[in-house]
Amino acid sequence: MTLNFATRLRERIMDGGHLCVGIDPSRRQLERWGRDNDASGLEFAALAILDAVSDVAVAVKPQVAYFERFGSAGYRVLERVMSDARDVGLLIVADAKRGDIDSTNMGYAEAWLSPGSPLVADAVTFSPYLGIDAIDPVFSLASQGGQGVFIVVSSSNDEGRAIQCARTAQELSVEEYLLEEIAQRNRTLTPGTIGAVYGATRDRPRFDLAQLGGPILAPGAGSQGADAGRIGRLFERCEPGSVLVNVARDIGDAGPEKRSLRDVAQRWRDDLASVLA
Amino acid sequence: MTLNFATRLRERIMDGGHLCVGIDPSRRQLERWGRDNDASGLEFAALAILDAVSDVAVAVKPQVAYFERFGSAGYRVLERVMSDARDVGLLIVADAKRGDIDSTNMGYAEAWLSPGSPLVADAVTFSPYLGIDAIDPVFSLASQGGQGVFIVVSSSNDEGRAIQCARTAQELSVEEYLLEEIAQRNRTLTPGTIGAVYGATRDRPRFDLAQLGGPILAPGAGSQGADAGRIGRLFERCEPGSVLVNVARDIGDAGPEKRSLRDVAQRWRDDLASVLA
Repeated sequence: MTLNFATRLRERIMDGGHLCVGIDPSRRQLERWGRDNDASGLEFAALAILDAVSDVAVAVKPQVAYFERFGSAGYRVLERVMSDARDVGLLIVADAKRGDIDSTNMGYAEAWLSPGSPLVADAVTFSPYLGIDAIDPVFSLASQGGQGVFIVVSSSNDEGRAIQCARTAQELSVEEYLLEEIAQRNRTLTPGTIGAVYGATRDRPRFDLAQLGGPILAPGAGSQGADAGRIGRLFERCEPGSVLVNVARDIGDAGPEKRSLRDVAQRWRDDLASVLA
Repeated sequence: MTLNFATRLRERIMDGGHLCVGIDPSRRQLERWGRDNDASGLEFAALAILDAVSDVAVAVKPQVAYFERFGSAGYRVLERVMSDARDVGLLIVADAKRGDIDSTNMGYAEAWLSPGSPLVADAVTFSPYLGIDAIDPVFSLASQGGQGVFIVVSSSNDEGRAIQCARTAQELSVEEYLLEEIAQRNRTLTPGTIGAVYGATRDRPRFDLAQLGGPILAPGAGSQGADAGRIGRLFERCEPGSVLVNVARDIGDAGPEKRSLRDVAQRWRDDLASVLA
């Protein structure tokens, strides 16, 4: 039987490091690489990054927005990228940040978590504005399939502070409220089903991240704000093998040459290994 | 020159009523209709709803989640549905509820608001958890193109209350904070660029919705919670032609026969005309 997501992730991290590479074939990235801003340029860039980092990263995080730019043609590219990533043994975290009412969330779960879907991933990101309770059917599906759902708790950008730091009726910040809700659910679901997106640029929350019961996906590394030292301090109390750090821009900007992409990814893997358990 | 979204919407509403029909080809809906849960069933259901309501509704709101279930094949169907809706003169509100950091949000804007994109819509829904400031580049693009962005402020489901009613540092609820932020931006953008998703099932906010400066998209009508009377009271102070009410399940469940679908839609149009300006 397939191991659940958190266990698979822990084994990969203990063996291969904490690096998740963001596949972000934005207009800006394609322009930097001298590629046309179309589905063909998109495919070239996404596959080049994948190829360069496949033996350095433990996971890839395709940013769905950049594929969606080209409609169905972009999704065809994303399906190819995900299939190739699976073939080389990388874990796939689909960065979709979906979030709606419960019945609609099941539509998204069918897309990203159902066996047989062309977009099926090991884990997917969800955004909680319409309520974490509305995501419960998605957690159930993920729990059954041994997959993961990362809830955006604390994003790496400053613009999210007004809402993420607002106070709930129980006098918790929205972030603390969500971390507690996640921890509570992880006690009854397949262990580690729900993780948190927690920006590497943020401060340590009052909630003890070691009690989350699920993995952490940390965006905002490198030129997006946080160096390895900061990341190490922020997550120093977390369980070994539970923190996955996403690096996107630093690696993408080193391309398109494979060796340059790979060198930057390797440096990040090594730097993270020196600060994280 | 093309009129901006809020003006086009107002003219349509004043002429043809307040009804937006939700195109929600969920697994549940396809099962009820006796159709296979695949891209072909999806296309049948979506086009049947579109065909039945094209002279009764002023807008359609395809729920992107249900198309995304089938990956690129589902997006091909969505492109066809959007193209057909445009051909029959309906406004299209893409219900995507996207939301990320600013650079990523531009990827979504390229998908849903860029002329020439296969998914280009008249308006798109965004979710604000990563910050309304992070959506500013999207508002700018919409403002330039005479399109609209509906920000999810108050969702129709109860699960969203914990976050949507949390208090910001300025002692506003998150909803009030967002309504004020929208109103402020609408004073400098193309008039009415930013609208609010405000659940028909909710109470009237302390913020005067007549001061929003943009349209309102109200989900949660009918079997999803709110009857016409409630909708009329909730939005009675709003500008004429600024409230678009989405009805999805009541209409979908009346199908698949065209006459039944159309009859329910027509009843909703008439009921809404009797309570809204």
